Amino acid sequence: MPPETSPDAPLTSSRTRSWWGWGYADAHPDDAECLAMGALLPGTLARPLPVPRVADLGIGSPAVTPPPSLAQLVSADPEDRAAHALGKAYRDVVRALRGRPGRIPDLVARPAGDQDVADLLDWAGGQGVAVIPFGGGSSVVGGVEYRGDAHRAVLSLDLTAMDRVVEIDVTSRAARIQAGALGPVLEGQLRPHGLTLRHFPQSFEFSTLGGWLATRAGGHYATGRTHVDDFVQSMRVVTPAGVSESWRLPGSGAGPSPDRLFLGSEGTLGVITEAWMRLQERPRHKASASVAFTDFRRALDAVREIAQSDLAPANCRLLDPGEAALSGASRDGSSVLVLGFESATAPVGDRLATALELARAHGGTSDGDTSREADAADSAVGAWRSAFLRMPYLRDGLARMGAVVETFETAATWDRIPALIDEVRTEVGAAAVKATGHPATINCRLTHVYPDGAAPYFTVLVAGRPGGEVEVWDEIKAVASEVLYRHRATVTHHHAVGRDHRPGYDRQRPEPFALALRAAKDALDPHGILNPGVLLD
Amino acid sequence: MPPETSPDAPLTSSRTRSWWGWGYADAHPDDAECLAMGALLPGTLARPLPVPRVADLGIGSPAVTPPPSLAQLVSADPEDRAAHALGKAYRDVVRALRGRPGRIPDLVARPAGDQDVADLLDWAGGQGVAVIPFGGGSSVVGGVEYRGDAHRAVLSLDLTAMDRVVEIDVTSRAARIQAGALGPVLEGQLRPHGLTLRHFPQSFEFSTLGGWLATRAGGHYATGRTHVDDFVQSMRVVTPAGVSESWRLPGSGAGPSPDRLFLGSEGTLGVITEAWMRLQERPRHKASASVAFTDFRRALDAVREIAQSDLAPANCRLLDPGEAALSGASRDGSSVLVLGFESATAPVGDRLATALELARAHGGTSDGDTSREADAADSAVGAWRSAFLRMPYLRDGLARMGAVVETFETAATWDRIPALIDEVRTEVGAAAVKATGHPATINCRLTHVYPDGAAPYFTVLVAGRPGGEVEVWDEIKAVASEVLYRHRATVTHHHAVGRDHRPGYDRQRPEPFALALRAAKDALDPHGILNPGVLLD
Repeated sequence: MPPETSPDAPLTSSRTRSWWGWGYADAHPDDAECLAMGALLPGTLARPLPVPRVADLGIGSPAVTPPPSLAQLVSADPEDRAAHALGKAYRDVVRALRGRPGRIPDLVARPAGDQDVADLLDWAGGQGVAVIPFGGGSSVVGGVEYRGDAHRAVLSLDLTAMDRVVEIDVTSRAARIQAGALGPVLEGQLRPHGLTLRHFPQSFEFSTLGGWLATRAGGHYATGRTHVDDFVQSMRVVTPAGVSESWRLPGSGAGPSPDRLFLGSEGTLGVITEAWMRLQERPRHKASASVAFTDFRRALDAVREIAQSDLAPANCRLLDPGEAALSGASRDGSSVLVLGFESATAPVGDRLATALELARAHGGTSDGDTSREADAADSAVGAWRSAFLRMPYLRDGLARMGAVVETFETAATWDRIPALIDEVRTEVGAAAVKATGHPATINCRLTHVYPDGAAPYFTVLVAGRPGGEVEVWDEIKAVASEVLYRHRATVTHHHAVGRDHRPGYDRQRPEPFALALRAAKDALDPHGILNPGVLLD
Repeated sequence: MPPETSPDAPLTSSRTRSWWGWGYADAHPDDAECLAMGALLPGTLARPLPVPRVADLGIGSPAVTPPPSLAQLVSADPEDRAAHALGKAYRDVVRALRGRPGRIPDLVARPAGDQDVADLLDWAGGQGVAVIPFGGGSSVVGGVEYRGDAHRAVLSLDLTAMDRVVEIDVTSRAARIQAGALGPVLEGQLRPHGLTLRHFPQSFEFSTLGGWLATRAGGHYATGRTHVDDFVQSMRVVTPAGVSESWRLPGSGAGPSPDRLFLGSEGTLGVITEAWMRLQERPRHKASASVAFTDFRRALDAVREIAQSDLAPANCRLLDPGEAALSGASRDGSSVLVLGFESATAPVGDRLATALELARAHGGTSDGDTSREADAADSAVGAWRSAFLRMPYLRDGLARMGAVVETFETAATWDRIPALIDEVRTEVGAAAVKATGHPATINCRLTHVYPDGAAPYFTVLVAGRPGGEVEVWDEIKAVASEVLYRHRATVTHHHAVGRDHRPGYDRQRPEPFALALRAAKDALDPHGILNPGVLLD
């Protein structure tokens, strides 16, 4: 369930963002909290790693100087550059904690409009400067850092100054929105019109529309149309070869979809600068409940049946016993299914009741604490939601205690789901123990479900090898990737490819499609400056 | 509403297909019926044009001979070649009637599997032979004919021998289906498993899965997911550069979607040979009704409100007064909204009732003859459905009487819909009168509706200039295209681009996307043999 922004939340925040960890610096666990968490995990450090300081990175002068015409858009400030050096994966946080953040960009640019973007690309193309489009910087797949040495310099292109809802078509329920708008900034501008995009990834506060589009983000809805792709009416993309702007259309059969080429292109084909997005009315009717299962396999069957019905729950997330315990949704070893329905048209109590019937037929028991037609969530739902938003901060606290704590996600058809989950638990668990010598926890939840399959999301928690945390994680992830590949489960359902997922992506992608994508890239980015190393070499 | 195949329909038919007109030869109106129809349209011919004969075309020997290894796949029979020379647009039918069908393919090949397709492409690439993938041949946009002279010879690649449902995954509700399966052939193989693809375009009997995928066909559902794109789990495409096979995934965020590049590629990038398609249970609950409106504008508002609700009708087609009269749904000058709901999960009477309430609030009156929870349609719904299936046959009868009778379709956001429809009526009507000197009828229906817009479908009916019917239609269509362009309404919602829609498509497609598509084409089809002239030069 989403982090509903409160009606009086400010559009932008004056709180300080952490350069090395998740979110706001003042929301990080303090040393005492870190120690308390570490005490629960055998083998962690005796005291937390210190919070890293930019001054210790020894950031030098930029390798290039922008021309005077662009100077006012560009910053060479070390704090700014450090905050754009990495995404927010566990391996990024640990590299920062260990003082090895990798290549720091030479410059950070903040264009105010499309012409600025085009001018910056022109200059970078002529100079051989790599350009890394940067939205909220929440990539967990190495999507916003430079690796390699084929370019003279690296420019991080921060889009967040382009954050306005420019135009609203209330009749067609759509809005033209600049790509640099963070989730709360965007929803705050739509709210007075009674409309919402209703795209609520876990990173909602710290990710942008452009980032969602470039990475095919998965959002609010647990069933059906959840990828942001389906909410795109048209897009505007500034490429080195010109501006691509598709028409606003509710549907079209005119050739391959232009938008679908740029959706998921992760900054390699152009810079998405704005999009017309399909909106919805804010829901007036809600109902939610949680269902406990003693048998995870039967819970999977229940979820599949609900996904294959036309009940269309907005939320339908299944937590395994470990995940349910971690989030406080259950402490008795049960799996928990969090169900939520919502509608702007009609009451949804009947749909919830039918879904609960299906769940009971597979051994589920509901706590009876359903909150029909109300905004308040029931206790298990509420517990899960709070934990969901707090999770990345806790991860960083555990990272300071030397723990290896990270997630990975995938999707597969239903026929493969039970064995896939079993084998991930067994083999990734064994890999974590082998790599560290410590007991390991592997939890699973289903974040999104479809009539034909589901998206399992795994959490790994184990004490690391001091100083070798990145290597430990890479070993564990390699084993996870092999299990996914064996089942032909996607290398990513909604975290994107970036640089970290390249090996799995290269195996998954059909070779003729790779040829076509390479050719498209060469046509649109002839100097090869756009996010080098992502998707393609 | 769809042409539900009857449970005892044979999988294939022994009836003879017309080489020059729609469907089965024995279903064509006879001379007396043609005369009766012509009598209703001032200015038509005194007697019908004769049914054309292949013998009169003077079809010569093929310009190339296939190697012995491919000989058993290939036919040079004149009847066969004539039947693969053209699609089924009005301008195709008239060209055949007037003895000017254009370039007849040299050969017709019927591969039995992927290796045959690859071998044929290899040979054609080496010989400079153009290859035109051919499914059911129902293109209405010049998608299956060769125009030009840049190739040594033309091969029509008929996929209909590859028509099996190869594999069914009941758990995930999906099937692997060969691309050459016609609609009834495919549904007939799914029916014993209680499953259905539920894709019912008007051409259902005479079009194939591969054709639907290659043209992004619009199907059964009037709301939400209607384009066949959304039912694709994975695809297999044989290209001159190798076989592209995507993984079976319920959802993925791994780079731009490979399938979405081939969906809508219209045979220019490769030959789609099979796909895993998402299936559904057959509906157990149905309800339908028709609603009359005296005010078309208010009917539009009602339809928009229903489309923006979450009621999700399976059918929601609005017929303007002319269209309602033509189909027999109404004869009193009313517009008629045909509403249908269906579900495999739960009764749908409540959803119909809510939709009818919304319609009444905008001045709609229902005839009360709703057939809830039953398979039988009410009288207006049934009349419309029968007329829908009979329409293409009647068109060919009218064409024999010298009438110009054709349709075109588009989609636009709701804010543009009322003016768009008005201006099409006015300007295209005037163009038809100007081109012919006869009174013209322009009818409109909405075939598909979305929360953000609708797909209007127009019928033009006017007596032609004897011998100049094609030119008359081209003049009318040029005016129609200008009106659509002015409103940035798509050149096609579900009829595809082919060769006829190239001018409009070239204006609509963003230039950087054209560059990327051209580059992808050159990479996958280096000899430029695949459906030359479609989408790209």
